[in-house]
Amino acid sequence: MAEVKIGILGAGRIGKLHATNLVNAVPGAKVVAIADLFMNDEIIDWAKGLGIEKCTDNPDDIFKDSNIDAVFICSSTNTHADFIIKAAEAGQHIFCEKPIHTDLNKIEEAIAAVEKAKVKLQVGFVRRFDHNHKKVRDTVASGRLGAPHIVKVCSRDPEAPPMSYVKVSGGIFMDMMIHDFDMVRYLSGSEVTEVSTFGTCVIDPEFKKYDDVDTAIVMLKFENGAIGVIDNSRRAGYGYDQRTEVHCEKGCVQVSNDLNDTSMISTAEGVICEKPTWFFLERYNNAFIAESVDFVNAVQNDTDVPVGGIDGLMPVKIAMAAKKSLDEGRPVKISEIK
Amino acid sequence: MAEVKIGILGAGRIGKLHATNLVNAVPGAKVVAIADLFMNDEIIDWAKGLGIEKCTDNPDDIFKDSNIDAVFICSSTNTHADFIIKAAEAGQHIFCEKPIHTDLNKIEEAIAAVEKAKVKLQVGFVRRFDHNHKKVRDTVASGRLGAPHIVKVCSRDPEAPPMSYVKVSGGIFMDMMIHDFDMVRYLSGSEVTEVSTFGTCVIDPEFKKYDDVDTAIVMLKFENGAIGVIDNSRRAGYGYDQRTEVHCEKGCVQVSNDLNDTSMISTAEGVICEKPTWFFLERYNNAFIAESVDFVNAVQNDTDVPVGGIDGLMPVKIAMAAKKSLDEGRPVKISEIK
Amino acid sequence: MAEVKIGILGAGRIGKLHATNLVNAVPGAKVVAIADLFMNDEIIDWAKGLGIEKCTDNPDDIFKDSNIDAVFICSSTNTHADFIIKAAEAGQHIFCEKPIHTDLNKIEEAIAAVEKAKVKLQVGFVRRFDHNHKKVRDTVASGRLGAPHIVKVCSRDPEAPPMSYVKVSGGIFMDMMIHDFDMVRYLSGSEVTEVSTFGTCVIDPEFKKYDDVDTAIVMLKFENGAIGVIDNSRRAGYGYDQRTEVHCEKGCVQVSNDLNDTSMISTAEGVICEKPTWFFLERYNNAFIAESVDFVNAVQNDTDVPVGGIDGLMPVKIAMAAKKSLDEGRPVKISEIK
Amino acid sequence: MAEVKIGILGAGRIGKLHATNLVNAVPGAKVVAIADLFMNDEIIDWAKGLGIEKCTDNPDDIFKDSNIDAVFICSSTNTHADFIIKAAEAGQHIFCEKPIHTDLNKIEEAIAAVEKAKVKLQVGFVRRFDHNHKKVRDTVASGRLGAPHIVKVCSRDPEAPPMSYVKVSGGIFMDMMIHDFDMVRYLSGSEVTEVSTFGTCVIDPEFKKYDDVDTAIVMLKFENGAIGVIDNSRRAGYGYDQRTEVHCEKGCVQVSNDLNDTSMISTAEGVICEKPTWFFLERYNNAFIAESVDFVNAVQNDTDVPVGGIDGLMPVKIAMAAKKSLDEGRPVKISEIK
Repeated sequence: MAEVKIGILGAGRIGKLHATNLVNAVPGAKVVAIADLFMNDEIIDWAKGLGIEKCTDNPDDIFKDSNIDAVFICSSTNTHADFIIKAAEAGQHIFCEKPIHTDLNKIEEAIAAVEKAKVKLQVGFVRRFDHNHKKVRDTVASGRLGAPHIVKVCSRDPEAPPMSYVKVSGGIFMDMMIHDFDMVRYLSGSEVTEVSTFGTCVIDPEFKKYDDVDTAIVMLKFENGAIGVIDNSRRAGYGYDQRTEVHCEKGCVQVSNDLNDTSMISTAEGVICEKPTWFFLERYNNAFIAESVDFVNAVQNDTDVPVGGIDGLMPVKIAMAAKKSLDEGRPVKISEIK
Repeated sequence: MAEVKIGILGAGRIGKLHATNLVNAVPGAKVVAIADLFMNDEIIDWAKGLGIEKCTDNPDDIFKDSNIDAVFICSSTNTHADFIIKAAEAGQHIFCEKPIHTDLNKIEEAIAAVEKAKVKLQVGFVRRFDHNHKKVRDTVASGRLGAPHIVKVCSRDPEAPPMSYVKVSGGIFMDMMIHDFDMVRYLSGSEVTEVSTFGTCVIDPEFKKYDDVDTAIVMLKFENGAIGVIDNSRRAGYGYDQRTEVHCEKGCVQVSNDLNDTSMISTAEGVICEKPTWFFLERYNNAFIAESVDFVNAVQNDTDVPVGGIDGLMPVKIAMAAKKSLDEGRPVKISEIK
Repeated sequence: MAEVKIGILGAGRIGKLHATNLVNAVPGAKVVAIADLFMNDEIIDWAKGLGIEKCTDNPDDIFKDSNIDAVFICSSTNTHADFIIKAAEAGQHIFCEKPIHTDLNKIEEAIAAVEKAKVKLQVGFVRRFDHNHKKVRDTVASGRLGAPHIVKVCSRDPEAPPMSYVKVSGGIFMDMMIHDFDMVRYLSGSEVTEVSTFGTCVIDPEFKKYDDVDTAIVMLKFENGAIGVIDNSRRAGYGYDQRTEVHCEKGCVQVSNDLNDTSMISTAEGVICEKPTWFFLERYNNAFIAESVDFVNAVQNDTDVPVGGIDGLMPVKIAMAAKKSLDEGRPVKISEIK
Repeated sequence: MAEVKIGILGAGRIGKLHATNLVNAVPGAKVVAIADLFMNDEIIDWAKGLGIEKCTDNPDDIFKDSNIDAVFICSSTNTHADFIIKAAEAGQHIFCEKPIHTDLNKIEEAIAAVEKAKVKLQVGFVRRFDHNHKKVRDTVASGRLGAPHIVKVCSRDPEAPPMSYVKVSGGIFMDMMIHDFDMVRYLSGSEVTEVSTFGTCVIDPEFKKYDDVDTAIVMLKFENGAIGVIDNSRRAGYGYDQRTEVHCEKGCVQVSNDLNDTSMISTAEGVICEKPTWFFLERYNNAFIAESVDFVNAVQNDTDVPVGGIDGLMPVKIAMAAKKSLDEGRPVKISEIK
């Protein structure tokens, strides 16, 4: 099978992460170029070390390069949709970090461009590739437990982000819980039809300044009759708390966190076990590799990507509905979001 | 300290359970009489075996017996409030199974009678005496984790009750989730101010006939700024699933189920562990004893009971608000319930 | 079925425990008398409270009482064999605390008397009635895992006993590990043929004064080809550590400890779980009741007792072999012990 | 820091594993050559894919290459000592797979050559780099639990090796338990002074043909007064069972296995959890990388390697003593092995 030549857009933390994985751990991938508006010597050195030949501060150098088969869009959120359109027009396959955009029209425009160009678009909902959540999904999807009744997701970050980030993050629903909205669709195998939100500021009153909350619970109804709930906290303190559970007709499947180690230290003072792995880079390390492997395979074999355009669109709609529910103090149907 | 002489009202499953515990496992208690509208030879033999001398089909024989210090009201729900009033008027201390009544006026009337008579009234929210839930509460109440942010309760019965019971149960919120409404007040140390409910019939469509659901999620807001969520299923299949969790400022305390044993059987097919204990009689066996011990102690020492009249009233209000939220498709404030 | 009238010999901790269980929790049992060489007012009051009518300082008052169907021998170890013989001669069924004696001839003499009188003799190896160890045994005995290959028992007391006790205890093998010798026979369903011992004094050098060790490991060979190992410590510090494991042809069954509760408290400092229950009274509380229930049932129904004379004899032989192995620095065959 | 240029000896499973790790995951390492007596096109292609330029069937091409700073000896056991000597004489640093040799004289000769040449020698006891076992060691070494009393290691392979391998393996003690002999030295921080072995053939009688056992328990005494025990099975069936535990003065530290995922599936039939990871490639994947990182760091910074020549020698002596104990039916002191 032919090697997939890849250009990376954005050399921030997530761009570097994908580049490194593609070089070291993804068979069949070759990273040939990287673009960043703020290209500098540090990035150039790092790219050299990985054997990436072309470094540029002009994204168009990627889209115009007929040698490039696929792009990884790892730039700031507001550029995602436009870059998708440009790549699609250039006939390049696309891996795009979430969210595609925070404006539904832009998302739909991007998806339309992808469909017209008949290129592949995979959205970076990395948690689907985690061994634990995948086990929940596979168990539910196998049908062995019967139909899902209750879908539960708990997601807590180890530490609250700086206010400089909160300001531009899009809020807890669009920035953080969006992963969980993807997760409930993935686990239940069904679309969300309605949400109801309770939120509170108990970690830091400053979240209020930005019309945001730091702690939130969202209830969900699904097309298939199931109901669900997500709880989010911007600060767990003890690490990255990522648990999912689906209760079905014949029983329940649930997963807890990966721990730093399996130790148990027993003394007169108590029994001490290890904490969850610290944050998403530790917890989803292998999942980041797995999603890239799947993308490259889909390109090489011309098969479907595992997370497509619709999977990029729906969580944004649910996030909008969740915020609207919080603001208006009432349940909101997804069909109200247009 | 003087022995507390006790009369039992109702010789059904729960009346027999309390009688047996009082006789065998509660120091300072003496069961002297039992009343049941359907008194029969089987009950009389059973009472004899426990050394209970007086058996009657007339509840008034209990209230009129000046030898009796306290009563355990274990009769059908619609009799609770009236029996409380009668016992209070007779100067007898009262342990009453939950709920006090499904009509708020009756509850308030009963509480007024108790206050007027200056007798003790303890309501049978037995889960507060479970070693696991108590550990969550004590950890939160100690303040070592800071203020509570998120309160979570999962409660699932092993099997759905027969439809004959569903018909008269008062519905999932008044019959089943009422325990969880008590639990969130107990764990958070704060009053519930608002709820929002999503419910569904996925176990048995017949629940709908009785204007009921078999699976429900209720979100809650608390006076202290915390938010919470309860999920209930009428049928877990694998046993009695009773887990609680409070996430606080500095960390999280959670408890899982008691298991039949701690075994782990590892084979090529998988690793098999034990199921949770089957139902409330198994899980809350020791808690039933503990609540009676506390009641008898409170009577003997003239100290406060651990679960008082207000604790009987509030969960009923929350249950009513939860049902109203389900019916009207909107969040409901507890202050709306009058 | 006729009530079994029971006399208790010895009103120490274990005698009181059995008496209380028989009165409160064992159907069909009636404790009618208790004997203790140091009978006093405190014991008499306690016995009254339980409804035990006869208190005496003369054991013969028990054996001579034709009203008594069965005895519980809870007196000091050196009296066990003689009391068994006396009870047998009186035609009374016998429950005897372990060990029967530390002299093999005395044990055999006692067993002979029991067989001659055709009464029942149950030995108090209470751990067989623990829900966890029983699950290991039942799993192995079911044959679903195939033949046992490796049998492992870990047993650690929370605190070292006082030296006054160590002096008369018979040593770690006869006093403490004897339970584990019973356990390996129970779990494997096979007889021990050879042992090899390593022991050390690391908790308190004073153990050496009494020709004892405080920490010991004993390897075992079984008739059925399996091998096994027991480790003992006189001081765990964190509670009563009682774990068993059998690895078989097709897999492994293991049990861990019962915990005080199932709590998990997660903070930045670590994750804290609960300790094992403190000591044998907490851990084997239900097992003490279960062994008495089984004994009373066997007497009432004239069926076999679950732990018979041979089960009293063999662990003593193994304990002797283990000590001999420690002393002589070589493996010792059980057949050498006579 | 200068890049460390590495030659690999042996292109079997373990040689390929190290080469891949060094290329993809070990900063500062560059694999420049690989030698294998049976060099072929498949190996050459694989090496090309990793960017390894030189492929040879003559080991001397490695030792004579003055460009090479260090070698990884991954060839068959009987070549290890000679290759160590050749590399040392060439002034090359050495990473050598375990065991160095099965003849003590050859090991000592190799160590002498290393010391004379003042090169580094690291032995491939990879389990020391596992996050779990390392946590046990670090906890013990920190002194927070006081002195070690009991050291326990359980090690079971998922499946028995083919008889063709058993024949040349050196036996269970030299081939399999040698890792555990290293582990007990590592965990206890003390030297083993005496062992006693019980072994049995219960998996496959054919092991006997090769003077071997398939299931074994070895007790150990340590210089510091602690005692320990290792149990080994050639076939667990459920995966790679690798647990360690050290009980100390003030408490116990233990680790269990890494699992495939953290799932718990609860149904009426039981609760199913995941199995341990399948075998050493899965369980010790990260540990293999970590040991190479440490080796390369030690070479670059001229610091001590974490597992030196004495760590290669001692486990071989203990393995010989364990086999002698099995053969002669008596405990054997390590000082007897010469």
